[in-house]
Formats: sequence, C-alpha cells, structure tokens
Amino acid sequence: MTLKIYADRMSQPSRAVIIFCKVNGIEFEEIKLDIAKRQHHSSEFKEINPFRQVPAIVDGRFKLFESHAILRYLACAFPGVADHWYPADLFKRAKIESVLDWHHSNLRRGAAAYVLHSTLAPALGLKKNPQAAAEGEKILSASLEQIESIWLKGNGRFLLGSFKPSIADLSLVCELMQLEVVDEKDRDRILGPHKKVKQWIEDTNQATRPHFDEVHAVLFKLKAKLQLQKQQMLEANNKIEYGTKTVLPSKM
Amino acid sequence: MTLKIYADRMSQPSRAVIIFCKVNGIEFEEIKLDIAKRQHHSSEFKEINPFRQVPAIVDGRFKLFESHAILRYLACAFPGVADHWYPADLFKRAKIESVLDWHHSNLRRGAAAYVLHSTLAPALGLKKNPQAAAEGEKILSASLEQIESIWLKGNGRFLLGSFKPSIADLSLVCELMQLEVVDEKDRDRILGPHKKVKQWIEDTNQATRPHFDEVHAVLFKLKAKLQLQKQQMLEANNKIEYGTKTVLPSKM
Repeated sequence: MTLKIYADRMSQPSRAVIIFCKVNGIEFEEIKLDIAKRQHHSSEFKEINPFRQVPAIVDGRFKLFESHAILRYLACAFPGVADHWYPADLFKRAKIESVLDWHHSNLRRGAAAYVLHSTLAPALGLKKNPQAAAEGEKILSASLEQIESIWLKGNGRFLLGSFKPSIADLSLVCELMQLEVVDEKDRDRILGPHKKVKQWIEDTNQATRPHFDEVHAVLFKLKAKLQLQKQQMLEANNKIEYGTKTVLPSKM
Repeated sequence: MTLKIYADRMSQPSRAVIIFCKVNGIEFEEIKLDIAKRQHHSSEFKEINPFRQVPAIVDGRFKLFESHAILRYLACAFPGVADHWYPADLFKRAKIESVLDWHHSNLRRGAAAYVLHSTLAPALGLKKNPQAAAEGEKILSASLEQIESIWLKGNGRFLLGSFKPSIADLSLVCELMQLEVVDEKDRDRILGPHKKVKQWIEDTNQATRPHFDEVHAVLFKLKAKLQLQKQQMLEANNKIEYGTKTVLPSKM
C-alpha cells in the first residue's frame, strides 16, 4: 500500500517531508489539505491527526504526525534512504537529534511567528500583529546568528560540519524558505547579515534539486501575488494622494 | 571514563536526565551549575554547550546537549536500559518521537513561560510579567487538555496507552512538576480539572521511585521557602494595615 502524506505545501514541515520522499525515491500519494480553507479541521483528518496539523502520514495501518518524527520514521522504514540523512552511527545521530530538538523553541518559534504575524495572517482570517511579529523577529535573528556561529561551524557545507545534508538541514532550511513571502526589504534586513546561512540554503537547494524548487513553487507563486498586490496598493494610494492634492485650496 | 552530567536540578530537563540515569543504574558524575548564580555562563561550560543551557553531558570525548537528544543517546548507549524507555521497534519508537516533538511547542512552552513569569522571575533577577504568565497559562491549559484526551488515551497508565513509562513520560512529567513552586491555588486551578494527568504524574513517580522524589527534593525545598515568604509577607501587610488604621482620624 502506498504511503499517504497529508500536506499543505504552504506549510514548511509539509514541504520538508515531501522533498525528503522525492529525493529518496519514496513513492507516495499526496493528499492536499488547504489550511486557509480549514480543510485540516475535517472529521476525517481528525482520525489521522487529532491535533489537526499537517504534515501527517498513513503507512499501511500506521499513522504518524509531527514532521521530525515522520522524517526519522521514513529514513528508517525505507531501506533506500542514504545514511547521511539520519545516520545509524549513535554519535552522529545524537548530534542531529540535538539540532532537531533545538529547532522547535528557536528557529521555528521565531520564523513561524514572524512570518505569520507580519505577512500571512490575513490569508488565514487573522489580523496582522506587529508586536508579535517583532518578538518573532528577535528570536529568529538570534537563531540565525546561532546557526551561523555554532551549527554551521566546521569544514562541510551542511549543519554540524557535514559534507552531506541530514533531515535537520532539510527541516531548518524549509523553515527559512518561508521568509520568501515577506516583504523583500524585511527579508534582506533579516537574512542579509548571515552570508553563511544564505549559502547553506543554496547548498541544500542544490543537494535536493530539482525537487526543492518544484515543491517550493507554491511559495514563489504566493510571493509574486503579494508583490503584485503591494504594487497595486501603492498605485491606488498614489491616485488618492493625487486626487486629494487637486481639491486642496490654492494658497495663491 | 564516567559519564558527566552538567545540571541544575531546578531545571526540569536536568531532572529528567538525572532520574533516567538513576533508575537505569547508569553511573554518572553530576556537575552542578547554579543557573541563578549564572554558572552556566562560564567559559568552561561554553566549551561543552555553546548555547549555555543545562543539561549537557560529556561521555568520554563525546559532548551532547538538548535533553531529549541526551535521553535518546543514553537509552541507546547503555545496554542495561530496558526497552520500554525508548523501544527499538520502529513503530513504537516513532510514536514516542511524536510526543517528544510535540512537547517543545506545547507543554514545555506553556509551562516554562507560566512558571517563569508568575513565580521564578525574581530569583533569576527578572521582573514578573503577568501578561506573559497569562499567555503561558493558556498554552499550558490547552496542552493539559490534549495530554488528557489524546496522549493518555488507551489502556495503560502511561503516554500512548503504554503499560510502562518511556523517556517521553519522564520528560513531560518533570516539566509539570515545575508547577510545584507556583502558588497552591494557581496550581489547583490549572491541574485540578485534569484528574488523569494528576494520576499519571503519580504513576510516573511510582515507576521511578525513590529517585523521583529524591531528585525533586530541591523543588520541594523551594516550594516551602516560597510559602514561608508569602506567609511572612501577609503577616507584614497585616501589621502595616493595622498600623495605618490606628492613625486614621476617627469619624466619631
């Protein structure tokens, strides 16, 4: 029976799981749930993940959620997966676990809060929250600094100085890719100071192509849409401003 | 060479790692770092954990931090550890990973924020923050509800319906034990509605005794100290109030 992945490619952990399967030749059926349309709240999906979050998988009779748990499981359950993704060696694996655990309360917490409250909120029927966005940015920036100075230390191009990516690289980079949808100047302000991080995103893309860009296509599409909306809003504002000026009484 | 554990027993993940070692007969040397005295900021400890957080371990030449990664490593590295703590079976292990991953952004986030901002802040040189405490309590209460209705579902007394505890039980229960130091009536308000959770805390204590209470002794001591301080403050307030009343002009 084919592995089923319940996912919304707008969700960063969903993308990590899908890219992992594609790169490793794991056959799967993708069951798309549109979070913006609250499809993850169906009673059918509740049977698969009572927390109603994507991604979740069904592999035969076995159900699983939480993306890191899924990535670990897939790496072990499918014998074709190369060892570097989740090494059998106890010490190498433990170090990868350390990054995966760190991720939750640091990079994920900061990036997810920043992107939601600065940009995505309206698409999910919420109001933007500048204070929550600022708090998210603070955690995100500290995390980027730590990735650069601690996790990316060493000779290799990947986390923990490795020469090949692990499930931790994939999870963290997919999280960072979410920044594609925020305003260009905000993204530059946040990512700009971190040259090593930017190179690592590029290296992870290279190591997983063409699947990386293909699975992120939905994000690039949204980015283009948001940029167009911004442009149209600016133009509309200019017209209003011009209109206002024409009715101002002349001082002459 | 003996395993070294860098820990502060006031930290809930430190306690989980210490109890795990004691229960499983893993010999270790405990190197106590007093967080309130900022001993985790020493340059010596930075070499062990650049994030300057406890717990961290050194096992021979191998250094590791993040408590879940440590618990997984210890369960695999020491052959005397019973299988139920971190089962070799792929499916059982994956479910435990799911709980461990869930913990970070839910129970841990809520409980740690609530206890810090409602109670422990002054001991760490910070001001109490009622708004952050309220936000923490909201996440904590939702997590307790989910533990009760989802994770504790099934026949067994432990998470995932198991009949014996895993590293996930230990990690989550040690987190909840932190509530011992908050005001009695707040603790009752939060834990009171969750009878199954209270029983599960007791069952985990039973399954790991006498080490559970022994390692938590530092928490019970702080609890007694805080209760005494509260009592003294109430008495002092009563005296001031009485004093004030005596100098109020009589309406007679």
